[in-house]
Amino acid sequence: MRQKRFFLTESEIPQQWYNIRADMKNKPMAMLNPATRQPVTVEELSALFSEECSRQELNSTDRWIDIPDEVREKYTYYRSTPLVRTYGLEEALDTPAHIYFKNESVSPVGSHKLNSALAQAYYCKREGVTNVTTETGAGQWGAALSYAAKIFGIESAVYQVKISYEQKPYRRSIMQVFGAQVTPSPSMSTRAGKDILTKSPNHQGSLGTAISEAVELAQMTPGCKYTLGSVMNHVTLHQTVIGLEAEKQMEMAGEYPDIIIGCFGGGSNFGGISFPFLRHNLSGDRDTRFIAAEPSSCPKLTKGRFEYDFGDEAGYTPLLPMYTLGHDFRPANIHAGGLRYHGAGVIVSQLLKDGFIEAIDVDQIESFEAGILFAKSEGIIPAPESCHAIAATIKEALRCKEEGIQKTILFNLSGHGLIDMTAYDQFLSGNLVNYRY
Amino acid sequence: MRQKRFFLTESEIPQQWYNIRADMKNKPMAMLNPATRQPVTVEELSALFSEECSRQELNSTDRWIDIPDEVREKYTYYRSTPLVRTYGLEEALDTPAHIYFKNESVSPVGSHKLNSALAQAYYCKREGVTNVTTETGAGQWGAALSYAAKIFGIESAVYQVKISYEQKPYRRSIMQVFGAQVTPSPSMSTRAGKDILTKSPNHQGSLGTAISEAVELAQMTPGCKYTLGSVMNHVTLHQTVIGLEAEKQMEMAGEYPDIIIGCFGGGSNFGGISFPFLRHNLSGDRDTRFIAAEPSSCPKLTKGRFEYDFGDEAGYTPLLPMYTLGHDFRPANIHAGGLRYHGAGVIVSQLLKDGFIEAIDVDQIESFEAGILFAKSEGIIPAPESCHAIAATIKEALRCKEEGIQKTILFNLSGHGLIDMTAYDQFLSGNLVNYRY
Repeated sequence: MRQKRFFLTESEIPQQWYNIRADMKNKPMAMLNPATRQPVTVEELSALFSEECSRQELNSTDRWIDIPDEVREKYTYYRSTPLVRTYGLEEALDTPAHIYFKNESVSPVGSHKLNSALAQAYYCKREGVTNVTTETGAGQWGAALSYAAKIFGIESAVYQVKISYEQKPYRRSIMQVFGAQVTPSPSMSTRAGKDILTKSPNHQGSLGTAISEAVELAQMTPGCKYTLGSVMNHVTLHQTVIGLEAEKQMEMAGEYPDIIIGCFGGGSNFGGISFPFLRHNLSGDRDTRFIAAEPSSCPKLTKGRFEYDFGDEAGYTPLLPMYTLGHDFRPANIHAGGLRYHGAGVIVSQLLKDGFIEAIDVDQIESFEAGILFAKSEGIIPAPESCHAIAATIKEALRCKEEGIQKTILFNLSGHGLIDMTAYDQFLSGNLVNYRY
Repeated sequence: MRQKRFFLTESEIPQQWYNIRADMKNKPMAMLNPATRQPVTVEELSALFSEECSRQELNSTDRWIDIPDEVREKYTYYRSTPLVRTYGLEEALDTPAHIYFKNESVSPVGSHKLNSALAQAYYCKREGVTNVTTETGAGQWGAALSYAAKIFGIESAVYQVKISYEQKPYRRSIMQVFGAQVTPSPSMSTRAGKDILTKSPNHQGSLGTAISEAVELAQMTPGCKYTLGSVMNHVTLHQTVIGLEAEKQMEMAGEYPDIIIGCFGGGSNFGGISFPFLRHNLSGDRDTRFIAAEPSSCPKLTKGRFEYDFGDEAGYTPLLPMYTLGHDFRPANIHAGGLRYHGAGVIVSQLLKDGFIEAIDVDQIESFEAGILFAKSEGIIPAPESCHAIAATIKEALRCKEEGIQKTILFNLSGHGLIDMTAYDQFLSGNLVNYRY
């Protein structure tokens, strides 16, 4: 019987995260304090984030960062996640390509987001923090943080982008089951929210806005830290557990990927699966292609500019050197809420600038066509975000067919779409539309 | 690091299902043709079901039934499912008990139902069937059958109990993604549905009614067979893959269960996890306790009568010797749609009568309290059905604590509750009520 799924034993789960900055010749440029235009310091960052995350954020020299035992113990609740060979999809596409995916949808909260949520909640707990705040788009990150906070005994407050709060009510419920306080953003509970609502009473929200609100609440609340689900270096660092596992699992499968694909919002799942493999490109040992798949309606990698910009709408964050559509960009109401963000992580931005990775944009309808084909052939209904990675994978697999070349493609299934069925309903009834930038 | 999850390799996945009837001293009584009051024959059954399933239904002598390679190949998409040690829940309960669960929620469609759907769809395909019909309550079985039919290239039509169709719209969408035609039941598309709606225009539906409609459609459609998600012997046979895997996995964990628990609707997940272990009780080698957890509002095992009754409301099925509340019983609108069935499978009924298993009933509110505690400690939001098994597990674990005895408890997590968040919403807002029989 051909083997479809590859697991690691608990002792094979990585003991360290991989910090790609240590291997980059061109290090990412410094983040700046907007007031002084000087590089931000750990001390400044730790006013907002846990101290350990602040240190990790600015650490560009240590190649390997230990995963605390307490975090690794929680990882074993769901890790290793399976590496899966998609015989069903390959057959449906009639492609010579071998397609694999890393199935992060099996995490308790349904996505890869838990990999960083556990780390961030743990560090907060260790440092005596009692409350955490965050923003969430589709709700994947919010659900992960709510659960992680709960198991480490911390209170959590989540600002959910209003359009997602309304499109995906089940995610709000999931966060509430884990004990989180959930507020649709923009809200009247913060100055940032009030300012935005005063100017635009019907503002549907964006990740940038929700970040402003969560940051403000953290700053106003004693014993409270802010946490972020993507974009930042330390978040992508935690997500490298995906690629490190996948590396061992691809070895079990007896193959090495020619192409690695992830959907792209802020970069955490894309970087998480890519960076451990990319290190072999940086060292000159491999020339794997890395493709970030972003929505056509929010195309910072393919149509944004590389410049210093804020990470949030209100301008509370440091200035980040990144590809951006502008921090006041208003993304269209696509269902892939996790990809509705104006900027790209600093490391990914530098790597794109230096030609180590590629980016393509995918229309909303094409993404759901890909998702449905995947569901019918592999049985898993993918998150709207992950549908973008699948669409890009299908493009490459069909190119293999056209050119008669057998390539090995690995993509990251960042999450399942069981909470996003209204989106599939709209697609099936022909009511889904494309938004272009 | 203590090991939480136990997996089998693909080659260790069972090659045969276990047919407990071969080991029962008191065999279940015969099913009767209601017209002749004579035992039904394979020929009569196969007017409705696939021939192979009809043979399996009446086979009480072969202890082991081969799993076809084609089915086993599809099992490897998600099997083995993990056996999980619940350190989080044990800690929350402060119990000396060791609690394990078999996590069937990781199947592509979110429940154990796929184990039989794949087998039934495969046999239909092999026998030249082009269409299948079925009923579904909460939608777990309907989703499984829709997916199984899709991957074996068969059309599917599903009658979903109306109250579930309305409570759980995402499940309808999932079935539609897999290409199924979904109709709320009772409907005007069958004589059985029309009769019921004429008498009771506001009938909220029940599994018994939906079965009548699906059976009628199968009988009226050339090339079409009917499939069932529980109750029947062949369905429970297919589900024994759960217990057979669990047996090997408990061995990996170095323990043997003292108590095995499953929620109870028609008996498929309960029998699936129990029967392989129960064979060691039947042979006198073990004295494990087996507990079926049913809802207080639909308590056929604890308050029903053992007698011949129809499997459906309209009286289309054979007469089954079973514990029943009467085939015209109208279950209350609890959220555990999969447990809203008037009767119990024939094998389980005989085993209960003979004292080999126990049953308890659980109130709706207690079931959700248990589900929330489980979610907070293990991260997985359980299906409302599975919450009943968890509630029974907690009862036993607390008894261990009270008596200071360390027992090993194994329960079946039949499915996740991500599509059932409206039920959790109602619970969290205090709007959930108990229904008693």
